[in-house]
Amino acid sequence: MPDVLPPDSVGIVTPQTLHFSEPLLLACGKTLTDYQLVYETYGQLNAKKNNAILICHALSGHHHAAGYHSMSDKRPGWWDAYIGPGKPIDTNKFFVVSLNNIGGCHGSTGPSSINPETGKPWGPDFPKLRVRDWVHSQARLADKLGIEVWAAVIGGSLGGMQAMRWTLEYPERVRHCAVIASAMKLSAQNIAFNETARQAIISDPNFCDGRYLEQNTIPRNGLSVARMIGHITYLSDHDMGEKFGRDLRSGSFDIGSDQEVEFQIESYLRYQGGNFAKQFDANSYLLITKALDYFDLAREYGDDAIAAFQNAQAKFLVISFSTDWRFAPERSHEIVSALIGANKSVTYAEIESKSGHDAFLLPDERYQQVFGRYLAGIVTE
Amino acid sequence: MPDVLPPDSVGIVTPQTLHFSEPLLLACGKTLTDYQLVYETYGQLNAKKNNAILICHALSGHHHAAGYHSMSDKRPGWWDAYIGPGKPIDTNKFFVVSLNNIGGCHGSTGPSSINPETGKPWGPDFPKLRVRDWVHSQARLADKLGIEVWAAVIGGSLGGMQAMRWTLEYPERVRHCAVIASAMKLSAQNIAFNETARQAIISDPNFCDGRYLEQNTIPRNGLSVARMIGHITYLSDHDMGEKFGRDLRSGSFDIGSDQEVEFQIESYLRYQGGNFAKQFDANSYLLITKALDYFDLAREYGDDAIAAFQNAQAKFLVISFSTDWRFAPERSHEIVSALIGANKSVTYAEIESKSGHDAFLLPDERYQQVFGRYLAGIVTE
Repeated sequence: MPDVLPPDSVGIVTPQTLHFSEPLLLACGKTLTDYQLVYETYGQLNAKKNNAILICHALSGHHHAAGYHSMSDKRPGWWDAYIGPGKPIDTNKFFVVSLNNIGGCHGSTGPSSINPETGKPWGPDFPKLRVRDWVHSQARLADKLGIEVWAAVIGGSLGGMQAMRWTLEYPERVRHCAVIASAMKLSAQNIAFNETARQAIISDPNFCDGRYLEQNTIPRNGLSVARMIGHITYLSDHDMGEKFGRDLRSGSFDIGSDQEVEFQIESYLRYQGGNFAKQFDANSYLLITKALDYFDLAREYGDDAIAAFQNAQAKFLVISFSTDWRFAPERSHEIVSALIGANKSVTYAEIESKSGHDAFLLPDERYQQVFGRYLAGIVTE
Repeated sequence: MPDVLPPDSVGIVTPQTLHFSEPLLLACGKTLTDYQLVYETYGQLNAKKNNAILICHALSGHHHAAGYHSMSDKRPGWWDAYIGPGKPIDTNKFFVVSLNNIGGCHGSTGPSSINPETGKPWGPDFPKLRVRDWVHSQARLADKLGIEVWAAVIGGSLGGMQAMRWTLEYPERVRHCAVIASAMKLSAQNIAFNETARQAIISDPNFCDGRYLEQNTIPRNGLSVARMIGHITYLSDHDMGEKFGRDLRSGSFDIGSDQEVEFQIESYLRYQGGNFAKQFDANSYLLITKALDYFDLAREYGDDAIAAFQNAQAKFLVISFSTDWRFAPERSHEIVSALIGANKSVTYAEIESKSGHDAFLLPDERYQQVFGRYLAGIVTE
């Protein structure tokens, strides 16, 4: 945390919580009778209420996208490089809403919340979720905030899937849709990585069939391995090579040395895994990776992505990153082609970046320019 | 197993075992006082003893490379497509030696063998190994078999690293070296995948700090996740997509359906993982992946690969596969460039294949042609 808040920071922000008592029917057929959403807002809703932007978060994201919770915070929100006064998502112009999705573990109702029917944590009994369930719950939030139409719905990765789904579920409520480093569906390889991560969690004896909170434990090792697997797929081979190469943290390769050799990349990954395991709920991880796997934009449109987008009324911005191999530029090309086929307005940029999938979170001049200029063109008067 | 042995099969083979009582000094400084190697041979050693080929195996390989152990075997050896009468490694011409490396778990001395000093399995106390240790132990095997000079040393992946190391350790004993789908050193990403697999094993409570055999258990879950991670990296994204796509094994995506959805790729990977965990020793897995990570052909040559190959006397065949992302064609290009720089004879082919790293094990016409014609040119009279 800086000693003085930077002038382009949204400053100190306080998360808010809204309770929803109207039951939410989920795609799985079950109903969430009662739930709460934690969210933050940055900037001011204008009189016409036409300057609101919704930020949809990715797998490990949450509501805290920008600014600081206190002056002692070490780091700002996860998308602080892109949200703030004068930044691409300019809070001088826009009213930005960023929530934690249901099923998450940062305050909104999820598997670690208490199931009112049992008085115990939901754990593995939390209903399965699909991307559309998040969209529906976000629409309820919009209703409560008095936002009839979003100036833009924006998301990276899994967030981009929510943004796309918004334009199909509520075509008249989205003027612009920004889909960043995303895909219309996961590939077999994407699913394979997710499933391997899930197996690491499920096979941890401390997982206790998902009832670890009742057992007063957490499947720390499994979650850590899951995150390590995920983390490898967020970085590019090249970037990992540049950052870590074959540098050693300890040990020696000298002939005759029996010292244990440890590469920097090993301790980095273990640190990332261990850190994540302290912060993230295992059942949320399972639930959200399943929602990722299940997402298939065009499934109910005869697998025809052009047909899927037919009713969308939004204009689209699609951004990909050259070294992203989790959701490669080809996946964005598919989105762009479908949008063109459906006769929609679409702006596309492939950003040259070394940072793999993670690039969507990181400061990059070209990305900031493309993103910022697109949003600057949105009329809010 | 076919009802009748195919005419191009080496037929029924019987593994042999050789004991070595001369101590083997390892790169780590420790000494293996006594060890055994299990191996198979195919074809006949000629009178001049100049038609012998050594096959070096990869991470999960072993001595059983070709033919059948009995008529009830379900499958032949792991490289049966390439070893046999009339096949690329033509047993009408060559005498082929295929061994299980020390540190492995298929009969040669390894972590699951009894440590003579304790009377218990070596387990985690088995000395750390480097690729050169395997090469030295293979040279001892050659001595016992009366093979002064190999017509060729051949290996894919980790096997290719052994083949390259042979040409540096024993330049006068290798006439030809075939390096297939390999690399002169692992990238940070390669190491990252290996480390994540190791963490899955080590954090399995049944690992018991490596003394699971004494506890009469095995870290099955950890090994299974480790194999799942590895397996993803052996296949290409494209191939996985073609083979499995988003096909379901069970469940339904119908709205209102609470059925658990399972993708084919998920059950395939879990099956692969579970199967591997029954067959492979966890300490061997740790040991061999470490040897992979540690391998760095040019380390002791001032990181100058050209200098490393300077003393090699072999002629080289280098083969890569277009969709191999574990050891991509670029890694083979580096080998070829170093060999050219060192003024060595090198033949290089990049095989168009959809099968990723696994392609080096699979039948492919072009690969068989290139490989077979190169070996056909080796003089053995």
